[in-house]
Amino acid sequence: MFAEKLILRIPGPTPIPPRVQQAMNRPMIGHRSGQFSALFAKVAERLKPYFGTRQDVYILAGSGTSALEMSVVNTVGAGDEVAVLVSGAFGERFAKICERYDIVAHRLNVPWGEAVTADLLSAFLDEHPNVKAVFATYCETSTGVQNPVKELAAVVRAKTDALFIVDAVSCLGAVPCEMDAWGIDIVVTGSQKAFMLPTGLAFLAASERAWNVIENRKPLAFYLDLKAYRKSLAEQTTPYTPAVSLIFGLEEVCNMLEEEGLANIIKRHELMRDMTRAAMTALGIPLMTSDEYGAPTVTSLDPKGAFDSEELRKTLRTKHNVIVAGGQQHLKGKIFRIGHMGFCDPLDVITVVSAIEMSLAQIGVDVPLGEGVKKAQEVLIHHV
Amino acid sequence: MFAEKLILRIPGPTPIPPRVQQAMNRPMIGHRSGQFSALFAKVAERLKPYFGTRQDVYILAGSGTSALEMSVVNTVGAGDEVAVLVSGAFGERFAKICERYDIVAHRLNVPWGEAVTADLLSAFLDEHPNVKAVFATYCETSTGVQNPVKELAAVVRAKTDALFIVDAVSCLGAVPCEMDAWGIDIVVTGSQKAFMLPTGLAFLAASERAWNVIENRKPLAFYLDLKAYRKSLAEQTTPYTPAVSLIFGLEEVCNMLEEEGLANIIKRHELMRDMTRAAMTALGIPLMTSDEYGAPTVTSLDPKGAFDSEELRKTLRTKHNVIVAGGQQHLKGKIFRIGHMGFCDPLDVITVVSAIEMSLAQIGVDVPLGEGVKKAQEVLIHHV
Repeated sequence: MFAEKLILRIPGPTPIPPRVQQAMNRPMIGHRSGQFSALFAKVAERLKPYFGTRQDVYILAGSGTSALEMSVVNTVGAGDEVAVLVSGAFGERFAKICERYDIVAHRLNVPWGEAVTADLLSAFLDEHPNVKAVFATYCETSTGVQNPVKELAAVVRAKTDALFIVDAVSCLGAVPCEMDAWGIDIVVTGSQKAFMLPTGLAFLAASERAWNVIENRKPLAFYLDLKAYRKSLAEQTTPYTPAVSLIFGLEEVCNMLEEEGLANIIKRHELMRDMTRAAMTALGIPLMTSDEYGAPTVTSLDPKGAFDSEELRKTLRTKHNVIVAGGQQHLKGKIFRIGHMGFCDPLDVITVVSAIEMSLAQIGVDVPLGEGVKKAQEVLIHHV
Repeated sequence: MFAEKLILRIPGPTPIPPRVQQAMNRPMIGHRSGQFSALFAKVAERLKPYFGTRQDVYILAGSGTSALEMSVVNTVGAGDEVAVLVSGAFGERFAKICERYDIVAHRLNVPWGEAVTADLLSAFLDEHPNVKAVFATYCETSTGVQNPVKELAAVVRAKTDALFIVDAVSCLGAVPCEMDAWGIDIVVTGSQKAFMLPTGLAFLAASERAWNVIENRKPLAFYLDLKAYRKSLAEQTTPYTPAVSLIFGLEEVCNMLEEEGLANIIKRHELMRDMTRAAMTALGIPLMTSDEYGAPTVTSLDPKGAFDSEELRKTLRTKHNVIVAGGQQHLKGKIFRIGHMGFCDPLDVITVVSAIEMSLAQIGVDVPLGEGVKKAQEVLIHHV
């Protein structure tokens, strides 16, 4: 099989568009040069619409987890109570980060595959009225749940003075996010999902409310000190060495996103989600998430023992050059997850559905060949 | 001027070799795939010789500063006393990181341009016998001083039980480093200097002594938790998302370094240092460092008012497409620094010397055109 035709359909990293790859091949420049400063300030500005904010967007050299930690260490401290909405592995990570700093994390746990609803959060905040921050996950990558952060933000705003902090790593840039209008205080994301870049950058924006807190605290860490990033961005630079080649790529990503337009990008992801869900349902493979909370960027399937997810994934990989993700933590070996985000279009969904059908047949599952493809086609035709 | 012929002679980032750039263009793969794991484990192994260690080398998505902080947060804590050897901006950064965590940092300050000697350290440790760690800078990027870390390690080993922790960001891979033999406990470096990669990766290795400390502490941070990296590396992976495309490039860097051979790489850098120093001396531009402590990777020049360093840099940039670095902090606007590391060879040094001669003439300095080039040539011919 051609290594260059690998079909990467995991929930990040996603394939890199050739023109973005090309941009990253620009000769290296100094990160303290005027040339870099101008580029950096411009791309930071161009990220704002995806956050739905007029606030500045900060760009960090690090993975998504470093930015999750950044949202913690600048806003709360040892002994503070916070609420962490845990609908999967990445919600749990927020809680673990808090606990590393002796922050008291009250977990609102829901079963993996379910969303945290406004009602659940409202009741939880009644139990924990003293929390200084509420940490939520927009798209929970480990389950494919899209939590209703707009509604959750409304609950937080109505009931408490707590900051509302959202991990949007695996969906920002592909889904609506109106940070300012919805009243979200911090939104965090990464480069390797809807932003179609390699891993290695994280982005963060904070509300004026959040800045009022941040400016009056001593941050718990150094590299992740948001005040240092704010001071530097005012001078069009970064406090520590930025990942220059990824910033080259990010400029081209901004071009691509603007050419397509955010409204179209959001529609494309919803379409790919709907195609995937319709196809998997036609094949009789149970979806892990309800239609209401199914993420536009990743779909999780739980065959519940009808076949071996790992055998399916292996066949996809070895016979068709298609990579889908497995489960994390207690779902390892049980479920599989199809990424449909970033540099991915509806025909890519048809391809992966077709490969899943064939692989199922090849591992001996009685599958109606072509039926998933047909349902996906119907959704696509109807949509276009 | 051709943007693609930009001559980047700053102390990092350095130009990227085309074959490394090419490697980074490989199609994206999943970072939790067997393919990535095998690649990752292999490059981590291949980094060991540059550290001079049999211990594992950890690869972090982040800039050099994140790895400096990693060496702090896993080894000491609030109230602990440490010694920080400050010979410039990056030594000072170690102290600032410590103070962020309420660690008591005793600074051994030397004037910028001078090295911390074994005698100075010995006397300092007599004054501060209770330090739990000693933080040093191998090459101080802001001044071009190469501190004698082998001798410093011997002092630490002889006088205390403190860990000896070395920032080797702007020299590792270009200079001798025998971490195990010299008794250094932690060595930290970055990707964008002698390793010829874009910015965005940092590397760290720790001695068995250091691990005995690390394993018995609760780390002060999350993303920088070394125990998590150790646990993951045993499974050929990383705790958080690695910077995949840079790891592709790192594999090709390892190929290049091994083809040249570390002994030859070290000689090449010493030669480039000697050429640069001889040429600048011939032009009457005072070196900021003594011959004994001049770094093989970067040379700092202090015209002491004989001409305007910023005017020189501007002329180099606008008339010759050559970028050299300015000064940092209190030396901003006063000195200039020539990087000669990584993807840089002796003829590149001739080029930059020639451009400096012409630029000096162009800004009205009475400079002996060609004399710097001639001295550099003599050093090169004599050497080869």
